[in-house]
Amino acid sequence: MTAIDFRSIDAASGEPFGDPLRVDGPVEVAAACAAAEAAFDAYRETGLEERARFLDAIAAEIEALGDVLIDTAVRESGLPRARIAGERGRTIGQLRLFAGVVRSGEWQRVAVDPALPERQPLPRPDLRRRMVPVGPVAVFGASNFPLAFSTAGGDTASALAAGCPVVVKGHPAHPGAGTLVAAAIRNAVTQSGMPDGTFSHLSGPGTELGAALVRDPRIAAVGFTGSRAGGLALDRIARDRDVPIPVFAEMSSINPVLLLPAALADRPEEIAAAFVASLTQGAGQFCTNPGLVVAIAGDDLDTFARAATARLAETGEQTMLTSGIRAAFESGVALLAGHASVRTLAHGAGGALFLTDAAGFAAHPALAHEVFGASSLIVACSDEAELAATLAALEGQLTVTLHLDAADHALAGRLMPVLERKAGRILANGWPTGVEVASAMVHGGPFPATTDSRSTSVGTLAIERFLRPVCYQALPNDLLPPALRG
Amino acid sequence: MTAIDFRSIDAASGEPFGDPLRVDGPVEVAAACAAAEAAFDAYRETGLEERARFLDAIAAEIEALGDVLIDTAVRESGLPRARIAGERGRTIGQLRLFAGVVRSGEWQRVAVDPALPERQPLPRPDLRRRMVPVGPVAVFGASNFPLAFSTAGGDTASALAAGCPVVVKGHPAHPGAGTLVAAAIRNAVTQSGMPDGTFSHLSGPGTELGAALVRDPRIAAVGFTGSRAGGLALDRIARDRDVPIPVFAEMSSINPVLLLPAALADRPEEIAAAFVASLTQGAGQFCTNPGLVVAIAGDDLDTFARAATARLAETGEQTMLTSGIRAAFESGVALLAGHASVRTLAHGAGGALFLTDAAGFAAHPALAHEVFGASSLIVACSDEAELAATLAALEGQLTVTLHLDAADHALAGRLMPVLERKAGRILANGWPTGVEVASAMVHGGPFPATTDSRSTSVGTLAIERFLRPVCYQALPNDLLPPALRG
Repeated sequence: MTAIDFRSIDAASGEPFGDPLRVDGPVEVAAACAAAEAAFDAYRETGLEERARFLDAIAAEIEALGDVLIDTAVRESGLPRARIAGERGRTIGQLRLFAGVVRSGEWQRVAVDPALPERQPLPRPDLRRRMVPVGPVAVFGASNFPLAFSTAGGDTASALAAGCPVVVKGHPAHPGAGTLVAAAIRNAVTQSGMPDGTFSHLSGPGTELGAALVRDPRIAAVGFTGSRAGGLALDRIARDRDVPIPVFAEMSSINPVLLLPAALADRPEEIAAAFVASLTQGAGQFCTNPGLVVAIAGDDLDTFARAATARLAETGEQTMLTSGIRAAFESGVALLAGHASVRTLAHGAGGALFLTDAAGFAAHPALAHEVFGASSLIVACSDEAELAATLAALEGQLTVTLHLDAADHALAGRLMPVLERKAGRILANGWPTGVEVASAMVHGGPFPATTDSRSTSVGTLAIERFLRPVCYQALPNDLLPPALRG
Repeated sequence: MTAIDFRSIDAASGEPFGDPLRVDGPVEVAAACAAAEAAFDAYRETGLEERARFLDAIAAEIEALGDVLIDTAVRESGLPRARIAGERGRTIGQLRLFAGVVRSGEWQRVAVDPALPERQPLPRPDLRRRMVPVGPVAVFGASNFPLAFSTAGGDTASALAAGCPVVVKGHPAHPGAGTLVAAAIRNAVTQSGMPDGTFSHLSGPGTELGAALVRDPRIAAVGFTGSRAGGLALDRIARDRDVPIPVFAEMSSINPVLLLPAALADRPEEIAAAFVASLTQGAGQFCTNPGLVVAIAGDDLDTFARAATARLAETGEQTMLTSGIRAAFESGVALLAGHASVRTLAHGAGGALFLTDAAGFAAHPALAHEVFGASSLIVACSDEAELAATLAALEGQLTVTLHLDAADHALAGRLMPVLERKAGRILANGWPTGVEVASAMVHGGPFPATTDSRSTSVGTLAIERFLRPVCYQALPNDLLPPALRG
């Protein structure tokens, strides 16, 4: 611990509040990793029901924190109370979902190839496979979801479900909420009789704490949601270790929204209203914020742009998560506003909307960079070919959205192959913000949306990031894990 | 193409034979990748039965090559004819296994969360998930399996099964066999009406060809079996791309064999005989060769060592795959023979066997490096604690083997947690050489056995290396892929 004054910051006023919080350093990192390592063998072999009850107990403990958690998270994040209350529900629901996943046992992916003693020219031995947890997992809380993507968020829930002890590096934008949630998890660890090192929480400002955590040789995998720079920095540290480990970083996406001609002709103003609602929700601070609109130029797109501009003008200023995020947003918006190939449609308190053409967009890759916050860029294409080429040139994305009517299906069908290669989720006539926690959800996508397109950080498949297969060949029955015994 | 004289080398004589072979360069790399990219959209949406028949057709075409393939591979590799004939059977069987995997459709991992229009506070949209192929895959043939881990080996079979076009960089140790197999695959492509770029084969000496292939932006993933240096070099190239891609490299393993006390007391000579047979099979040129024996010191281990030494002395010299592999083997063996902490038990034409104690092994990490060929090191431990500590200090492995009797089960049970963390496959009373192609097989393991412990390069799970999930949200039925339609 050091003498730094590390406290919660009120996002609205910029003033510190509450008691000074713990500032962890290398000693605490090493202690947390040693505890996680010591807990691993016992924790990973807990019974399915026992582990599921532990996840349920975490959910109950978080619920039992009551208003103090909501109050703290609202004040630290500047997000509306209803949003934070909803996020708590999502966090609890996610833990209970993974409790169900654990109970089902399907995640073990048991496979058995029985012995074939008579096979020629050689007999086949008995082969059995299951998935085992990779080891202690480091989780980095995200600034924009102080509950659902943070201390007890999806990464923590899926890693614990897999049987991995977790060491969380709490996000310094909400240390108060993180500390409360960590205490709730610690209570559940104790109540459920789990090994002490099953969960640890590290707290403090700066990046060195997280770097030390990823460097620790006892850490076997990393879950991260945040900026591209942050994710790539952690990935580099993880790759440069003597034993490299995977970093599952969910990083950067501008979430293209395609307005196909018939839908755009049919309801430009309706789509514009819903677009602005999605764009400005939570001050636009979503990984899935619709930062790019792609359509064919013409009167209908003009109508959409006018309507969206008017809507945006009616939107009031919202508190952003931190002064740093606000500053980055303003500089991103200023860059677009001052760009020779870009026309500013709206640039006010509620957000910013810009317009460019496909040639300008293609010529300036910087226009495709994520601006975290309520800013979006419309790319007007001259025809279908230019629209398809614009999509094909995009980087990997978390989502791609189609607004379409029946008359647009043929065009949409032609675009599907490129959309599938670009994104982890393709959605129709909706908005990418709002990521369901469900079996079929994919919150992932090709680089730079994530560092591993074969994974998702939301939904039941998220557990697979923290599992690896082991084959048992001709093992005596009593030495097999219970799930594999004959 | 260049004027280099690139021909098959007779492994036994070191002399070139056969016609000069194609030497590909940057132009051919670019052409193969462009063709793979052009083929991808059509190939990945081939029907399950159509794609399965294509894999079956490759198997039939390889079978139809007849003796010329066997003759060429035997001469290029120096491996016995029966082994190469068996390897051809394995290669064909593997293609047919993956045809069955494709037909079953389970690899698509379809998940459906139906819409909940009445859900409060917000309705849930319809969510459907499937796995899609990642894109064109580069495959590097392995020197030691000219058929089963090479041009039409497990990486190629699983990538094609996943729906990924494949560009093979053939191993220069068996360019003749590679060229024959490539022609067989090309025939199957044509007969089956697959897009032309579904399969390409690049041929030539040196490392620049493979490096250029991994750098090509159209390549989406890499399969590799070979040395640690080679795998790490390709992994670095892949990570340094603008868009990093995964390299599934199966690299380095010394495959510890534990001789537990009761089994060792019961049948030291029987185990020794089987050990030497496994060690010297194929001149020891297996990824799963038993390069390390760990046991508790005493009379029984002495008996084992004496018997193994005698057996090894009876083993004649075998041709190694290439002069480079022979040179690396000899320098690895010389290093052990000259090591102050190591006693040489056998060092003859048939192979080498060394002895050290646990303290010496712990003090000299170089003793744990793989020596590719028929060389193994016995580590004598003073007691169970030292044996457990020796295992715990090992790097990741493809396999760990236990020789045990009923009286050893309690000790084996205590060791299982560390064994599961070290290896992808744990086997009892057998030998790690001989990797079954089956559903439950795992030919993988923690670094440095592979670059991705969550994968296997043998068995049906190998297909998952080349698949990623995509979620379709509220997509109209006619825009959904057939497997997801309602």
